[in-house]
Amino acid sequence: MDYFDSDAWRGFLESQALLPEGFEIAVTSLDFTPVEKPDAGVLHMKLSLLRTTEPTSSFAGVFTKNAFPGWPVLVGRELLDAPLIQGVLVNNKVANVGASGGLEASRRLAEAMRTALGDRAPFIPSSTGVIGWSLPVEAMETAMPDLVQKRRSDSLLPFAEAIMTTDAWPKIRCASCGEGRIVGTAKGAGMVEPNMATMLSYLLTDVDVPRDAARRILSDVVKRSFNRISVDGEMSTSDTVILLSSRKRPYPGDEAFASALFETSSALAEDVVRNGEGCGHVFRIIVSGAPDEPTATALARSVANAPLTKTAIRGNDPNIGRILQAIGAACGRLGINFSRERTVLTIGGREVYSSGEFKLDGALEESLNRYLKERELPLPAPRWPAHEKRIEIEVNLGLGEASSAIIASDLSEEYVKINTDYRT
Amino acid sequence: MDYFDSDAWRGFLESQALLPEGFEIAVTSLDFTPVEKPDAGVLHMKLSLLRTTEPTSSFAGVFTKNAFPGWPVLVGRELLDAPLIQGVLVNNKVANVGASGGLEASRRLAEAMRTALGDRAPFIPSSTGVIGWSLPVEAMETAMPDLVQKRRSDSLLPFAEAIMTTDAWPKIRCASCGEGRIVGTAKGAGMVEPNMATMLSYLLTDVDVPRDAARRILSDVVKRSFNRISVDGEMSTSDTVILLSSRKRPYPGDEAFASALFETSSALAEDVVRNGEGCGHVFRIIVSGAPDEPTATALARSVANAPLTKTAIRGNDPNIGRILQAIGAACGRLGINFSRERTVLTIGGREVYSSGEFKLDGALEESLNRYLKERELPLPAPRWPAHEKRIEIEVNLGLGEASSAIIASDLSEEYVKINTDYRT
Repeated sequence: MDYFDSDAWRGFLESQALLPEGFEIAVTSLDFTPVEKPDAGVLHMKLSLLRTTEPTSSFAGVFTKNAFPGWPVLVGRELLDAPLIQGVLVNNKVANVGASGGLEASRRLAEAMRTALGDRAPFIPSSTGVIGWSLPVEAMETAMPDLVQKRRSDSLLPFAEAIMTTDAWPKIRCASCGEGRIVGTAKGAGMVEPNMATMLSYLLTDVDVPRDAARRILSDVVKRSFNRISVDGEMSTSDTVILLSSRKRPYPGDEAFASALFETSSALAEDVVRNGEGCGHVFRIIVSGAPDEPTATALARSVANAPLTKTAIRGNDPNIGRILQAIGAACGRLGINFSRERTVLTIGGREVYSSGEFKLDGALEESLNRYLKERELPLPAPRWPAHEKRIEIEVNLGLGEASSAIIASDLSEEYVKINTDYRT
Repeated sequence: MDYFDSDAWRGFLESQALLPEGFEIAVTSLDFTPVEKPDAGVLHMKLSLLRTTEPTSSFAGVFTKNAFPGWPVLVGRELLDAPLIQGVLVNNKVANVGASGGLEASRRLAEAMRTALGDRAPFIPSSTGVIGWSLPVEAMETAMPDLVQKRRSDSLLPFAEAIMTTDAWPKIRCASCGEGRIVGTAKGAGMVEPNMATMLSYLLTDVDVPRDAARRILSDVVKRSFNRISVDGEMSTSDTVILLSSRKRPYPGDEAFASALFETSSALAEDVVRNGEGCGHVFRIIVSGAPDEPTATALARSVANAPLTKTAIRGNDPNIGRILQAIGAACGRLGINFSRERTVLTIGGREVYSSGEFKLDGALEESLNRYLKERELPLPAPRWPAHEKRIEIEVNLGLGEASSAIIASDLSEEYVKINTDYRT
């Protein structure tokens, strides 16, 4: 889809953002000065509430595997065992990673939110922003009555906007699911805030998915969506995906639910890449003909993360040599029995390497250069995505039946510029 | 060491470049037009010879593990079993990777060199340049009598200059070894030529190292030197390290030889990083207190390759959060039992994280910012290295006794700019 202006984009977003039955959101803001960096001056934090109108036993969460996780991630992991959950409380600006007393701060804030609402089930806290800074706990508590006041149940859009940090646009995707719906939002990726990469996603549904199914299906869907993207190969200290059900509509069964959850999650995951810092193209590396799926995924990820693949795509250069070099390097590292003769490489469906030979001539090269150019995204990113096109690169190894794909962004001077700016 | 101008640098280089006894070199050049890309026009190729005056049984080689290696790499691997070797023949501009008939072309050229010199032992071919192009075999053969004519045994410098591609300066390092010497040269890394990353290194000695020791020691030394660097995390299709002995001086024993070979190789490896494309700082990540050495190496490599570490260093930003995030991500991926409490992080010897707390205050941050700035390299690179300073970052995991280090370059806008330029 092409979006010619922010109105066209906003119309699409609003059509996706209708909250499922049994949910409400609220957004407020507060000013604070980080104690660890007083010369940063007065900063503006958004505090956002997402709540089921009744406590729910049907929820699930997947958290970062980073061994140095943020404090909210530790609290969230503990809460997965709770019998009931009431919702989530999200702040930007401060990631609450590595700050002393951060565990207590996250617990205290979640508890204060519960008390302010008079709820009996706990809230899951999420934080995104600078590592090492402490949360301004008292100012956040003071803002809570305003959150209680401002609850609304019409649209997810204000919440999706409030959790943004350096995102250029809010991300919302929905899918129908039996007699209900799944609506999700995500923020991140690549570096957000000058210090941190963080991906947060909240997936809401009114269908009454059993707790065990919610956990099993979310875990599988995350593997095939959010874990199949790459902006800079980094895994943040705070990556979090939460699924909440209000249990208002009948459950259509595992297959229908998994399919709708995958539709929502994979679209959000691609949105996150498209809005990654300095993203000039979205491309998908499909590795097929692999001996098994983990091998296909590892290989696709290696090629997607290779700086020489990424910079070639940024330059609209159909550089077969660099792609084959990255495949060869990864096969060497992974001990895959690469075959020069069996391997087939296509870009945009056009065969560029097969039977051990480069197929590129002047005409094909020009046509592929055009194919790449047509898929370029404007930089710096405007406040909406220009289009939803992506580049397709497929490597068939001719070694088996398994396949996997990674969706990634190119590597631009803008990415480096954003991330070398000394934080102030 | 600081080099204030190219004369100071050249003086140092010449002091290193004296050829050991029993070696000669020659350099010539030729013009050609790539058949695969006639509109590239007339290109200028350097053809370089390195030869022992008598055939030698004492040689060794280590080649890329890339599963899509260049044709010369396949020929080189075969020749490791030869009883005697005479030398190496190197060209730039064309990597001879993936070109049809490339295996025959490399064999034919090596054989033509042998015949032109009237030698009985074979030559190892090396090629560096564009992937997918065919070698101009006839023009190269025509240039060989000139190579035979131009042999000289005084200095390695003309050879070191001729094998350069996008390198800004030649790289030569020597070490004394018993009654003899080891002199080595290297070219590359990062992308060289618009299409390829290639690291080539030739290590020459006059000490009579037994063939088996040469193989064992070279393999170990490469692991601890050339395989402990990272410019962009890529492994080229043509990476090659060759060790040749003229057997003119007595062998001082394995320990002395290994020590001198490591001294030469590790200095060359660091030179290669310092002259990596768009390199704005050289930094070393030391992981200590690790349960075992492979774990320490894998972890150091992950942090060294993390774009957020690299861009922070480029920006002279002592960004502890990003480094801890990269360590946490790698520990999560590698299943290392990271401890918040035991981990100690130092930058330039200054403790910035320990006992679970960030130690950074305004004064320390300013001092570290100065430390990073003093180690910055000018970009674009002048024709000599400005200095040999590097940044030291140490992560002590507090989990064991093993340690390892990776020497790497930062990630600059210049790197991306160089590598996104559409090849012409």
